[in-house]
Amino acid sequence: MERKFSLQCPMPETDFEVVTLGHGSGGRLTNLLLDKGIFSIFKADELQKREDGAIITLKGPTAFTTDSFVITPIFFPGSNIGELAVNGTINDLAMCGAVPRYLSLSLIIEEGMKITDLWEILAAVKISTENAGVEIVTGDTKVVEKGKGDQIFINTTGIGELLPKANLTNSRINVGDRVILSDQMATHGISIMTVREGLSFETDIHSDTRPLHEMTIDMIDQFGEEIKLLRDPTRGGVATVLNEIAVQRKLGIELDEEKLPVEQQVKAACELLGLDPLYVANEGIFIAIVSEKYADKIVARLQTMKFGKNASVIGTIKEDHSGKVYVRSGYGGKRVVGMLSGEQLPRIC
Amino acid sequence: MERKFSLQCPMPETDFEVVTLGHGSGGRLTNLLLDKGIFSIFKADELQKREDGAIITLKGPTAFTTDSFVITPIFFPGSNIGELAVNGTINDLAMCGAVPRYLSLSLIIEEGMKITDLWEILAAVKISTENAGVEIVTGDTKVVEKGKGDQIFINTTGIGELLPKANLTNSRINVGDRVILSDQMATHGISIMTVREGLSFETDIHSDTRPLHEMTIDMIDQFGEEIKLLRDPTRGGVATVLNEIAVQRKLGIELDEEKLPVEQQVKAACELLGLDPLYVANEGIFIAIVSEKYADKIVARLQTMKFGKNASVIGTIKEDHSGKVYVRSGYGGKRVVGMLSGEQLPRIC
Repeated sequence: MERKFSLQCPMPETDFEVVTLGHGSGGRLTNLLLDKGIFSIFKADELQKREDGAIITLKGPTAFTTDSFVITPIFFPGSNIGELAVNGTINDLAMCGAVPRYLSLSLIIEEGMKITDLWEILAAVKISTENAGVEIVTGDTKVVEKGKGDQIFINTTGIGELLPKANLTNSRINVGDRVILSDQMATHGISIMTVREGLSFETDIHSDTRPLHEMTIDMIDQFGEEIKLLRDPTRGGVATVLNEIAVQRKLGIELDEEKLPVEQQVKAACELLGLDPLYVANEGIFIAIVSEKYADKIVARLQTMKFGKNASVIGTIKEDHSGKVYVRSGYGGKRVVGMLSGEQLPRIC
Repeated sequence: MERKFSLQCPMPETDFEVVTLGHGSGGRLTNLLLDKGIFSIFKADELQKREDGAIITLKGPTAFTTDSFVITPIFFPGSNIGELAVNGTINDLAMCGAVPRYLSLSLIIEEGMKITDLWEILAAVKISTENAGVEIVTGDTKVVEKGKGDQIFINTTGIGELLPKANLTNSRINVGDRVILSDQMATHGISIMTVREGLSFETDIHSDTRPLHEMTIDMIDQFGEEIKLLRDPTRGGVATVLNEIAVQRKLGIELDEEKLPVEQQVKAACELLGLDPLYVANEGIFIAIVSEKYADKIVARLQTMKFGKNASVIGTIKEDHSGKVYVRSGYGGKRVVGMLSGEQLPRIC
């Protein structure tokens, strides 16, 4: 396990090596874990007060979203569950058209977890919130017996301020609108699968976990109403999100096979593992449904940004094939891409 | 397991009996669990939109709090983890001096959980949110493998509007202030312990889980600044909360042994199990630190309310014994009541 986060900030010094049930019972040991440990990493004023909750002040309409992260393994190529839990909720706020502001952090720890693993994960939480400009203001820590959890589960719940220009709703999607993908797909899911299958030594595929709000805020600021919908294709991948949209709007979505962007190593791993990249989970990309007229301008602008270099139009909203997503191949053939059925990649986020 | 909640609202009809890993993978089965199951129980407009988050509008300063519930067993005398998860977060908002408004609901389900158990728990969530006047507006569902969880863990994160008259902070606590307890203590913890120890057939002790916000809103409305601090003594019990206050404020807290309210059956069970009721977890009571002058008026008003019939002054803030809590007995003796050390009652909430 790479200690890349805990090297970047001072770590607590504690005289215990693993988390015990007593650390969750609410008494002296809980105070020790919090005061000497968790609170020494996070320094938000609201958190330090140790009241039952935080008091925050918000302007106007507010986005509110929650996610529990149960990914396995908790350390994976390029990152860990702590950074994932921060970026995942930031991205859900971004997809609502909001500026992420505040997060809560709730930990369910399995008895026996190594304390250095916990600090590394909390360091990742701290550094990724700082980088993204959001604040952890309230939290909770529980401990369950060995065999009743799996090292650590993390819930983050986020609050953000809605951008005045945001008008994101699938009811505004029309025939002719374009489907933009902000970057190459399937990277996160494949990075996890290569570890699980013991292939990580053969590849160098890192999870794409990263915050997307700077890009979405810029897009909405620049193009306002031309952006109809934003979604991040996490569990179930691009195909599942597009199927949901097609069903809800009773329209068809045509994808252009040659334009579906997958990094070469990821594509090779998908072939090896027998996975269709359209169904593989992502953490650091988004789908935007935008007006036909502005699609190319939006893509051009995304390509100037840090996480948008490979942005492209991958498809079009159609009147035919209502409720379905289909891929048109280079030879003119069509295949319908249904909703993911059953379990492809459990515990991918 | 008592089906008292699912009898009160229409339950989903699904053709599967247990939750499987596929229900958490983000594909067709997840949609089935959500559309035919969870969304058919909850009907909040924001939730039905199935976007990445909800858009809400709030007025003024806002309280924000999170809690993950890992109680075992998930069904216990009088209630289940679903009602506990709603009331627990409502009460944390109430202790901040806020009017609870919105909750998020995030489920971590263990593979193999009986679907009828899940529906009963979600029915409890639905009914208790309706009774308390709060709304579930956003959620998340994850499934982990058998042996990596314990049936169900629930995170609720709450948002409430701060009451303009609330001025709750331990820095306002002074020598002479009174400690009020809103009802008898140790009931929740003992109800769980009697089940775990197989004593439930001998007693009729039900958990005291219930929402406290109506009482706290009324108190703040009536007595404003006279209320210095509100805390709910959950994990670690009354002694732990009072110790935290004594340490933070560098003052002593004297409790009057004869006034510590414990229901007769609960007291008997505590003796049988060798537990001190001051350390046993509660879910439906609160501690208020109030000015000496208004203490009796506040108690009198609480006693007129549904969950405050046994409200009483149990102690006084003192200059001596700085940082300590002590009990004065009927014979004039004193014993210091320290912070709970180690694990008394793991997974009590």
